[in-house]
Amino acid sequence: MSIKIQPEAIASLRGFEMPERLGFGTVMAPVMFRARYQDGRWSDGELIPYGPLALDPAAKVLHYAQSCFEGLKAYRCGSGVGLFRPERNAARMAHSAQRLCMPPVPETLFMDAVRVVVAHCAGLVPGNSGESLYIRPFLMGTQPDLSVTASRAYEFYVIASPSEAYHPGNMRLWVEREDSRAAVGGTGDAKVGGNYAASLLSISQLKARGYDQSLWLNPGNRRTVDELSGMNFFAVMDGALHTPALNGSILEGVTRESLLTLARDLGIEVHEREIDIDDLLKLVASGTCSEAFACGTAAIVSPISELGDSEQRYRLAQAPGPVATQLRQALLDIQEGRAEDRFGWMQMVQVARF
Amino acid sequence: MSIKIQPEAIASLRGFEMPERLGFGTVMAPVMFRARYQDGRWSDGELIPYGPLALDPAAKVLHYAQSCFEGLKAYRCGSGVGLFRPERNAARMAHSAQRLCMPPVPETLFMDAVRVVVAHCAGLVPGNSGESLYIRPFLMGTQPDLSVTASRAYEFYVIASPSEAYHPGNMRLWVEREDSRAAVGGTGDAKVGGNYAASLLSISQLKARGYDQSLWLNPGNRRTVDELSGMNFFAVMDGALHTPALNGSILEGVTRESLLTLARDLGIEVHEREIDIDDLLKLVASGTCSEAFACGTAAIVSPISELGDSEQRYRLAQAPGPVATQLRQALLDIQEGRAEDRFGWMQMVQVARF
Ligand SMILES: Cc1ncc(COP(=O)(O)O)c(C=O)c1O
Ligand SMILES: Cc1ncc(COP(=O)(O)O)c(C=O)c1O
Repeated sequence: MSIKIQPEAIASLRGFEMPERLGFGTVMAPVMFRARYQDGRWSDGELIPYGPLALDPAAKVLHYAQSCFEGLKAYRCGSGVGLFRPERNAARMAHSAQRLCMPPVPETLFMDAVRVVVAHCAGLVPGNSGESLYIRPFLMGTQPDLSVTASRAYEFYVIASPSEAYHPGNMRLWVEREDSRAAVGGTGDAKVGGNYAASLLSISQLKARGYDQSLWLNPGNRRTVDELSGMNFFAVMDGALHTPALNGSILEGVTRESLLTLARDLGIEVHEREIDIDDLLKLVASGTCSEAFACGTAAIVSPISELGDSEQRYRLAQAPGPVATQLRQALLDIQEGRAEDRFGWMQMVQVARF
Repeated sequence: MSIKIQPEAIASLRGFEMPERLGFGTVMAPVMFRARYQDGRWSDGELIPYGPLALDPAAKVLHYAQSCFEGLKAYRCGSGVGLFRPERNAARMAHSAQRLCMPPVPETLFMDAVRVVVAHCAGLVPGNSGESLYIRPFLMGTQPDLSVTASRAYEFYVIASPSEAYHPGNMRLWVEREDSRAAVGGTGDAKVGGNYAASLLSISQLKARGYDQSLWLNPGNRRTVDELSGMNFFAVMDGALHTPALNGSILEGVTRESLLTLARDLGIEVHEREIDIDDLLKLVASGTCSEAFACGTAAIVSPISELGDSEQRYRLAQAPGPVATQLRQALLDIQEGRAEDRFGWMQMVQVARF
């Protein structure tokens, strides 16, 4: 595929000034990638200035949520800029697209798009440990037509956001026993908008009660732990690492898979299994479960300090605990180029000159 | 609330030519209503020309599907133009908005918006029985911010589509035993994009097998009938009308409620209850269930001729059956002003002159 670099994109990059404070996912890079799909074919891609999209008011995405997205990061890695396992994001996005009847973005298109954005935004990748350029590819159905059928036209974008380290701090989780983020036979293992929409109410309610995130239970049995709204869940019991096994309603996190690999490599015992919430709470109360944490691209590894379940509060003995700290450091050392990339996870990006 | 009528809106109405063929939901009226919400307040509304929306690429609706919609119709009713029970759509939209943590559109804003569109598009309401102006209000989160939290800015639109009668014909339904459109504790009883996104794959697969629509089972028990992707389900057994009771995962259709009222009024026995799919299939096979139909604003009442379940096909004895035919006619007679509006369902709209 050939990618057209619009002169206006280069101009907006030249004119861009990094704000003092970045936050996470709020400052947007001044360029974006776009490709269109119509009549069974992808157009050539373009790097264009960041700016408003023109969408028909009847576009499928606005009514029927036919959209999916990804989240990955570019890091300052040694003297270059590296992407962490981007091919897994490409594969997950293809899976998400198929779940919603959208044409999967071919891996080469996905990779070229992410690379061209990062290559041109290399100067915007901040340099302190934990900082990064957060990258958000997304795909949506744009055909203007009110029938509940798959769109025949799509647009694929990659936008990016220079971001500070995202430290939610020690998190207090609310065991969500009423609402579900996705159904059995639904879209839980796909990264599609509807799952996040369904979780907004729980998030806002628990914030009012002083909690930070929902801990979602499996919608089939309402009894075993699935994950958080945007992170996977881990618990440490007697020194062993436990995480819910993939079951169709959990999103398979790239961080989750990487931590499992690192843990095994560090000689930590690992269990992917069903975790009954009532058992878990008892083990936290007794101290057998000494630490718990959540993981994802944005926050990497975030300690959980408390689980709240109706009137009861269950405090974790250690937050952060030694396992979370060790795994976080091991992962960041690879992502930022301080440790050898023994698993071949990093892909360096050739920086564009302009 | 005061609504500003843009001169350009009037100009596009004057310049509009109705196409020969309308279809359903494909020809868009040349004007639309817009109001914005920010900092806890709704702006004044405007009637503006129909045209592309400008959305920031990081707008919440595009990533997290924070959007909901409604569907209602304006009919030629006697010598005027009438809306059918629009206050129920206003209430349902408020419910949908709250499920996704969005500010509900106040009933007066909803009604004023629908009325101003219909008042100006009265000339576009086609006149044959079954034809109508289909009206699509929708609300979406527009704040550009990638965090999974509710938007702080919203836009509310009403678009409209002059439409032919929508006759899907006798429908063949596929009993969907794998996928779900919404979770228990999810968003099934709200009219939000994610439910429709989740149903697209099933719809496309069954079309390839020669079916027309999925018959969704309850995601909690995978055993009782919920509804179709955009219609509620009814079956006639020994002359009595049966429909699944509302259970949190079914959308409460305005047509469903109206048909139940009409049926009771016509002396038909009515049961709102759990309908076990295996029982239903047996009763179809034995002929006890002689007819079945689906109902919704778009298609009004649509007969079901067949239920397909893996290799088995179950044919309904009558499609359309007498109950479906009687109820459809009774409803249409009220909507189109041939019968007395005994339940106070119609709201006439004062036509705008320009
Ligand atoms: C629902 C959900 N679970 C888990 C994750 C973690 O996935 P990853 O490690 O690939 O960022 C995310 C975020 O991407 C998510 O949205
Ligand atoms: C999922 C679903 N069920 C049922 C209906 C029927 O509702 P109504 O009769 O209000 O159009 C609709 C359509 O609006 C729908 O989308």
